[in-house]
Amino acid sequence: MERPLILICNDDSIFAPGIKALIRSMQTLGDVLVVAPDSPQSGMGHAITINSTLRINRIPNDEGYEAYSCTGTPVDCIKIAVNKLAKRPINLVVSGINHGSNSSINVIYSGTMSAAMEGCIEGFPSIGFSLCNYSYDADFEPCLPYVRHIAALVLNQGLPSGTCLNVNIPSPKKGGIKGVKVARQAKAMWVEELDERTDPRGGKYFWLTGSFRNLDAGMDTDEYALEKGFISVVPVHIDFTAYSAISELSQWNFEPPRI
Amino acid sequence: MERPLILICNDDSIFAPGIKALIRSMQTLGDVLVVAPDSPQSGMGHAITINSTLRINRIPNDEGYEAYSCTGTPVDCIKIAVNKLAKRPINLVVSGINHGSNSSINVIYSGTMSAAMEGCIEGFPSIGFSLCNYSYDADFEPCLPYVRHIAALVLNQGLPSGTCLNVNIPSPKKGGIKGVKVARQAKAMWVEELDERTDPRGGKYFWLTGSFRNLDAGMDTDEYALEKGFISVVPVHIDFTAYSAISELSQWNFEPPRI
Repeated sequence: MERPLILICNDDSIFAPGIKALIRSMQTLGDVLVVAPDSPQSGMGHAITINSTLRINRIPNDEGYEAYSCTGTPVDCIKIAVNKLAKRPINLVVSGINHGSNSSINVIYSGTMSAAMEGCIEGFPSIGFSLCNYSYDADFEPCLPYVRHIAALVLNQGLPSGTCLNVNIPSPKKGGIKGVKVARQAKAMWVEELDERTDPRGGKYFWLTGSFRNLDAGMDTDEYALEKGFISVVPVHIDFTAYSAISELSQWNFEPPRI
Repeated sequence: MERPLILICNDDSIFAPGIKALIRSMQTLGDVLVVAPDSPQSGMGHAITINSTLRINRIPNDEGYEAYSCTGTPVDCIKIAVNKLAKRPINLVVSGINHGSNSSINVIYSGTMSAAMEGCIEGFPSIGFSLCNYSYDADFEPCLPYVRHIAALVLNQGLPSGTCLNVNIPSPKKGGIKGVKVARQAKAMWVEELDERTDPRGGKYFWLTGSFRNLDAGMDTDEYALEKGFISVVPVHIDFTAYSAISELSQWNFEPPRI
């Protein structure tokens, strides 16, 4: 029986330790095709490259997988992999392992999750993995049995149509992984602080920075699970319709008054 | 009574005709603050600028509104407006009018809609407006009574928490606007074609292009409404949780087998 084909992407670049850990783990489940950005693309959200061009480079390796770097965004990487580089049907798309959390509202800014969501749009079972540790030399080893097992579950059982998984792994500072919780996205936001500086010619510029604010006291959220040392698994869908608002809006009179 | 403060953004740049039409229309409802990208940012999705710096320039005008261009993405513009440039509380965030459709799956790639969604994350009633006509000299006049009326409705009645509106206006080629339909996001995708070219030094590069495919035969979708000549109003939420999948996933055994 042919081994499954697993497409791997991320947003920290093809050279990040997190994707290397994910590649090693996925090679125990199937054949691996890596298409990932050639430079860090954190915070790129679901951006695609339409006003400039893309280049692809094959990255040779001795570990038995096929790998390409791309000058574009994580979503570009998935589109190129699916439509150009994959030589047989893809069975699973995995993205990560991200250096840093993509829980709660971070899902919307995350290039890692956007790659998984693009895999989902293209019709493949897709998972984004993130470790709640931003450091370059984060230790990915302790979470790999979970990463492999969750990927194997999705390979075997599939996912509901239009749904992918946002998997976040608690910071190692929380102690060992306590287990896994299926959760909902916590209500949260970033409160921005614009760090204003002056360049050598006297011009003002800004760094976007800020602090995370969890607005959700629920015990069924991803933030709660992570805080308690559990891996959070949030099913994420690509239909953004707020169905609960449709009936209320349908009562509105949208016809402009005649003047 | 103080006039409402309306924040305006887009992704086609502060110099695009679509935003100028929106500014004119919103000035009849309140005081206008424009913070928009200094260059086209179509397809930027929910990208934010964290690996480089941002600059802001005041753009003088004789039409009585305050305007700033920003070197960043549409989402950056909203963050900067809310946290730095707005001098009093914002009552409404509007984005657009986009030159081109942001219906169905386009909501996820759209910088215009990401600006509206960021307004929603920050807690403001927010609307993205798009005209299904990509040309630079598209005629925005016929839709302005609807744009103004929808903005006035949202100003007066608010929107459910965590929900913003994705408003798409049919192509003028469909004839006059037939009315407004509240709709759900159609299931759709882009089938990519990578247009491969060779640079003067023999290197290969690609343009990302493709064709839109509506996978949804429903008569309650935005695509259907637009096809029939109606403006589509889709309530969009920022909670991406696929609640319907939670109970199924909760049955899975996520504990890795002990080896």
